[in-house]
Amino acid sequence: MSGIDWIAVDWGTSHLRVWGLAGDKVIYQANSDQGMAHLARSEFEGALLALVAEWLPDAQITPVIACGMLGSRQGWVEAPYRALPCAPLGGTLAQAQCRDLRLSVHVVPGLKQTRPADVIRGEETQIAGFLAQHPGWDGVICLPGTHSKWVHVSAGEVVSFQTFLTGEMFALLSDQSVLRHTTAGWDDAGFRPGVEQGMERPERLMARLFTLRAEGLLDGLDPGLARARLSGLLIGAELASAKPYWLGQRVALIGADVLMRNYAQALGPLSVPVSTHDATEMTLAGLSAARALLPEAGARPCVN
Amino acid sequence: MSGIDWIAVDWGTSHLRVWGLAGDKVIYQANSDQGMAHLARSEFEGALLALVAEWLPDAQITPVIACGMLGSRQGWVEAPYRALPCAPLGGTLAQAQCRDLRLSVHVVPGLKQTRPADVIRGEETQIAGFLAQHPGWDGVICLPGTHSKWVHVSAGEVVSFQTFLTGEMFALLSDQSVLRHTTAGWDDAGFRPGVEQGMERPERLMARLFTLRAEGLLDGLDPGLARARLSGLLIGAELASAKPYWLGQRVALIGADVLMRNYAQALGPLSVPVSTHDATEMTLAGLSAARALLPEAGARPCVN
Repeated sequence: MSGIDWIAVDWGTSHLRVWGLAGDKVIYQANSDQGMAHLARSEFEGALLALVAEWLPDAQITPVIACGMLGSRQGWVEAPYRALPCAPLGGTLAQAQCRDLRLSVHVVPGLKQTRPADVIRGEETQIAGFLAQHPGWDGVICLPGTHSKWVHVSAGEVVSFQTFLTGEMFALLSDQSVLRHTTAGWDDAGFRPGVEQGMERPERLMARLFTLRAEGLLDGLDPGLARARLSGLLIGAELASAKPYWLGQRVALIGADVLMRNYAQALGPLSVPVSTHDATEMTLAGLSAARALLPEAGARPCVN
Repeated sequence: MSGIDWIAVDWGTSHLRVWGLAGDKVIYQANSDQGMAHLARSEFEGALLALVAEWLPDAQITPVIACGMLGSRQGWVEAPYRALPCAPLGGTLAQAQCRDLRLSVHVVPGLKQTRPADVIRGEETQIAGFLAQHPGWDGVICLPGTHSKWVHVSAGEVVSFQTFLTGEMFALLSDQSVLRHTTAGWDDAGFRPGVEQGMERPERLMARLFTLRAEGLLDGLDPGLARARLSGLLIGAELASAKPYWLGQRVALIGADVLMRNYAQALGPLSVPVSTHDATEMTLAGLSAARALLPEAGARPCVN
């Protein structure tokens, strides 16, 4: 099999997604649950080959451009954070060691901010993809997710950013806390009131979380309403804290459909102009931009 | 074996603690991990007998006075919540069904508040114990724990209360979130700055949580400092939200030693007069007060 000239990789903590491309055209795609958290350094190459070996053209070196947690200190190869302010892509991609001479694996570095201390790894590629598609764009990019990011972009550079634990908190609270007994499903009618409460009095968050439990016990609060209100409370508290980012700015949302819809719904009444952009599409555009950073000799075999 | 005239029981979600007493004097004590969450209704009696069977005097009925989650809908017998305002103890204790005729098991009801919806189950007994030892006391009682409670007490009645998810959040974040990689141990020097940050800008909580992670990655923040700061951030946010409770009041803390020390340290600079009271002692005093509510015929065998 053949027909591809490079491979794009998004390697997160819990998942691995790969695409085989001819130029910008996706020919193959595959994924597995072999996230970085499950792998020792020596196991990355095998996990990658398990998905892409059949795609590789014979007798030539296929460049692999990768982003995400595989570039962390515990990953395949450390791609040290680049310091702000800087373009979302730049510097040298880190080359991972591998034994299969058909592969040349290059990892995009993350970004770091000194004060307040903050890091990005993976989202820088989506930001780069967005800017490649919207050259000259200035404003704020919000990337909702497990750790949602608010990023101020100006003149092609990332100027500042702030990470919120919102998505991870939602997962922990709805799946593992006492709230798991009274939250399930999703009823959109609970979301908006949650956002309003979360924004108006963010300091009451930990009390209002228990109110969800008590309303379930005493008032029979519907579990779908409760789960949507929980999400709203957390996103509302995030918006209250991220106000210096979105106030008077246009916001580009990059993420999964459902999450973007919720954030757009939360931002709607704040008179913030919002656009939405598919996260996978931005990742591929960013990895394509990163590929252009490789020197001509970039498709050399991995260092052994 | 003998020598006791009643048994006190604190039956929580994850633990069971029992005491055999002669009057107010503890003769025996025991505990197990047979919390309410692990038991079907039919299994409670066996879990209790496994600890107390050897203590029971022959040929007489020993009253058992119990508080905690065994009185919830999923517990041994439901002891419906009593509505505020009311004394912490009152109404009828719920009698649990059991087959061993030597036992007569009575369960203390919890308390409920309508707006904002909130519930107490177990802490009402500690409050009653405190008031039994401090008759005529007016002020605010704070019971730190998995779900910390702030309780306004006046003229012997609970007037209002508010529950915070602080303790459960701390456990989830330090044990199961991304912060588990960069928090471990405890260095007290991290606590106070966390409380100050949490109180001053409670709305930034979810951002500051990730800052702990980023400082670990970028600045090598000590894991003990990080874990103490995490605790401080959460308790500080709780204090910011609970201000209507503690402002201008005296506060009686009831809890475990370490937790009370942290709350006392957090409240110290706020010019709040604080006293501390051992949770187990208050539970026993409260169960003793509940025992006095039983009619003379209270030591009748369990309903079959």
